[in-house]
Amino acid sequence: MSDGQLPDRGAVPVDHVSLRRHNLAVVLGNLRESGPRSRARIATDTGLNKATVSSLVSELSDLGLVRDGEVERGGGVGRPGQTVEVDGRVCGLGVEANVDYIAVLVLDLRGEEVLYRRTPVDVPGLGAQRTLDELARAIRSAVAELRDGGRDVAGVTVALPGMVETTPGVLRHAPNIGWQQVQVADELTARLAAADGDDGTARVACPIRVDNDANLSALAEYVMGSSAGVADLVHLTGETGVGGGVIADGQLLRGTQGFGGEIGHMPIGNPSQPCGCGRFGCWETAVGLAALLREVADPDDTTITDPSVDLDIRLAEIRRRAELGDGRTLRGLEAIGTALGLGAAILVDLLNPRVIALGGYFAVLGDFFLHAMETELDKRVVLPGRGGCRIVLSSLGFRAACRGGAHVALEAVLTDPASVATPTAVVAEVPGGMA
Amino acid sequence: MSDGQLPDRGAVPVDHVSLRRHNLAVVLGNLRESGPRSRARIATDTGLNKATVSSLVSELSDLGLVRDGEVERGGGVGRPGQTVEVDGRVCGLGVEANVDYIAVLVLDLRGEEVLYRRTPVDVPGLGAQRTLDELARAIRSAVAELRDGGRDVAGVTVALPGMVETTPGVLRHAPNIGWQQVQVADELTARLAAADGDDGTARVACPIRVDNDANLSALAEYVMGSSAGVADLVHLTGETGVGGGVIADGQLLRGTQGFGGEIGHMPIGNPSQPCGCGRFGCWETAVGLAALLREVADPDDTTITDPSVDLDIRLAEIRRRAELGDGRTLRGLEAIGTALGLGAAILVDLLNPRVIALGGYFAVLGDFFLHAMETELDKRVVLPGRGGCRIVLSSLGFRAACRGGAHVALEAVLTDPASVATPTAVVAEVPGGMA
Repeated sequence: MSDGQLPDRGAVPVDHVSLRRHNLAVVLGNLRESGPRSRARIATDTGLNKATVSSLVSELSDLGLVRDGEVERGGGVGRPGQTVEVDGRVCGLGVEANVDYIAVLVLDLRGEEVLYRRTPVDVPGLGAQRTLDELARAIRSAVAELRDGGRDVAGVTVALPGMVETTPGVLRHAPNIGWQQVQVADELTARLAAADGDDGTARVACPIRVDNDANLSALAEYVMGSSAGVADLVHLTGETGVGGGVIADGQLLRGTQGFGGEIGHMPIGNPSQPCGCGRFGCWETAVGLAALLREVADPDDTTITDPSVDLDIRLAEIRRRAELGDGRTLRGLEAIGTALGLGAAILVDLLNPRVIALGGYFAVLGDFFLHAMETELDKRVVLPGRGGCRIVLSSLGFRAACRGGAHVALEAVLTDPASVATPTAVVAEVPGGMA
Repeated sequence: MSDGQLPDRGAVPVDHVSLRRHNLAVVLGNLRESGPRSRARIATDTGLNKATVSSLVSELSDLGLVRDGEVERGGGVGRPGQTVEVDGRVCGLGVEANVDYIAVLVLDLRGEEVLYRRTPVDVPGLGAQRTLDELARAIRSAVAELRDGGRDVAGVTVALPGMVETTPGVLRHAPNIGWQQVQVADELTARLAAADGDDGTARVACPIRVDNDANLSALAEYVMGSSAGVADLVHLTGETGVGGGVIADGQLLRGTQGFGGEIGHMPIGNPSQPCGCGRFGCWETAVGLAALLREVADPDDTTITDPSVDLDIRLAEIRRRAELGDGRTLRGLEAIGTALGLGAAILVDLLNPRVIALGGYFAVLGDFFLHAMETELDKRVVLPGRGGCRIVLSSLGFRAACRGGAHVALEAVLTDPASVATPTAVVAEVPGGMA
């Protein structure tokens, strides 16, 4: 124990196996955060001795997680060093089903986006079972493409717009897509484990996690968004529903059953406006996607209101009109901003976040309503100086939930690199296999 | 390092001094949580070896924190053991200034309440400086009384109904008592350090902390209330304002500047009702003490509305009327319950707590409005099964904030027992002094 770093586990005794697993994670984390470097430099960075580092690097290489990089040149003492770098072969996959689309996103272990694909799907109309078929097809197709490129997935995370029991991966209730009690993890595992499909894709066997889309978006914002590292932040997603994800003191606020962050139904909207949840006057009736469309366009303005047209295209049209100074559009966006500020004020006073990050359609159109939102916030927030809170538009946009999902899938590898050997599909693909 | 328990500090190297300080805390914590026991039993409980335990107990005894208890009798193997127990001499003091009272409460290291005193004071009328004079007087008087009984205080925590920067102990803004930018810790330290006052009390020198009353109440509920150990809870205090304290995953939710939990000003009350903050329709205009009095009594019903009468007496009268079935009183309490449920629903959906604990006047009268509150909650909460949330009346009542304060003062001793030697006032009182 002379040179190792101790796992953060309080009074639990540290044995040699867990210490080694921890040190694998330390070395992999060092390479991921600080970039390619020599074994000697890793030893200096981590406090581990050089022989230990060499052995750990060799094990990580066998697992397919690191590989040799360039040879270091220039003025150092001693012989030029062979650098080591994170290998991008192992990937995490995030998949999302929302009201009108499904999406797949892959991050490699270096944090780079390898693949993103969004498909318009009428999820409420399709129902849970057939949507799960679609999700499985999308995952199998993405994995097949990855395998063709010599990569594979270490895990899949499913993002859903509802209340999720992350263990065992069950969706309890999702009003906006009409799902109730769906065994998402089990159902998908079965579909992915089936023998080769008629689309020619091979079976996929890896851990499947399920989580709330807003939680995953907040996590993505915290880990890789423009607010990365901000320990107290709220992420608001503007879609059909309005999702909230809260990071408090660097931790995702889940609550006692993991359902925290349901902020769309605060009773602060117009009391005569019906909500998808069956109540009236919920916040999302004033700031959700339906409210936006209602505020900026008449029902027969199909360029904007036709749900079969991709949302990106419709939002681009709203943006175009706003840029042209169209009065109806600008007034509508201002109304959205004011309503957003009213609810955000509650969150600021209760949670005192450093940042509120706006995702989904808020991120696409926010520059046109930010002023109205901040004006309302300043009127309503009790904390002096708004408690130091900044409002930012998320750079992750609609990809946030998928990105958070892909990150969570990779996190298991980063925390315990040796675990990557477990999914058989991955072992089969990684040359060298496990020691 | 063969038998010690490691401090929970991740990658930080552990030296012998910090290990010993940590182990002092382990032994003291074992005695505090599990009661008097022999050194051999402590060794079994903690995994420390017997020689180490003996030496640690001896140091704790020198610090005045533990003492010999009874001799263990009965069927154990070996000679009868001398037990060790927590010594009650070292105390923590919580002091509170609220709209119409100041209060002092002392807990000894065993967690027993040694002293509680509440005095009606018109705090907004008196202003910050003269209220601080009163607080200093109350602290000096309590400490004098403790010293007469052979005890002393290791620390003082001041609870205030406003936004507090805990470091360096400054009250930024407290609308209900009209304080702004008060250097509470410094001002009180100076007053307590002054030479003997005309009231004959000696000077007091110990760490002074300042915190928000609702935060301290939530902490007290979590540590010693009827919801002790519930990792996700919200504590709501019904006073002139309505304070919120949030425990999320076992941690007090403070937010980025420590101002979290400001829930009294959610815009869900009657929009024509003015609030102390200058806005209209805040939640506390519907559930704060003024709302209660307005709902249950006419202004000329001075038995209830006269602010110079102690609040306990006025609340007892409301209770008496409710028990007699007085229609006005019962309807008023029902209105309070409904308004409480409306706001609590927002907190349940956002935070998914296991428990909402009601303190302040809510705890005194809650049994008459709990039904109305739960009815409204069930109507409003989106989480299925109310997210598993129970509503409980806090057994700590108006003492919660002071108790939380006294606990925080003791926590420093429990975390680092050797620190108790620092305040000179304590050293002077503890026989044996420091090694």
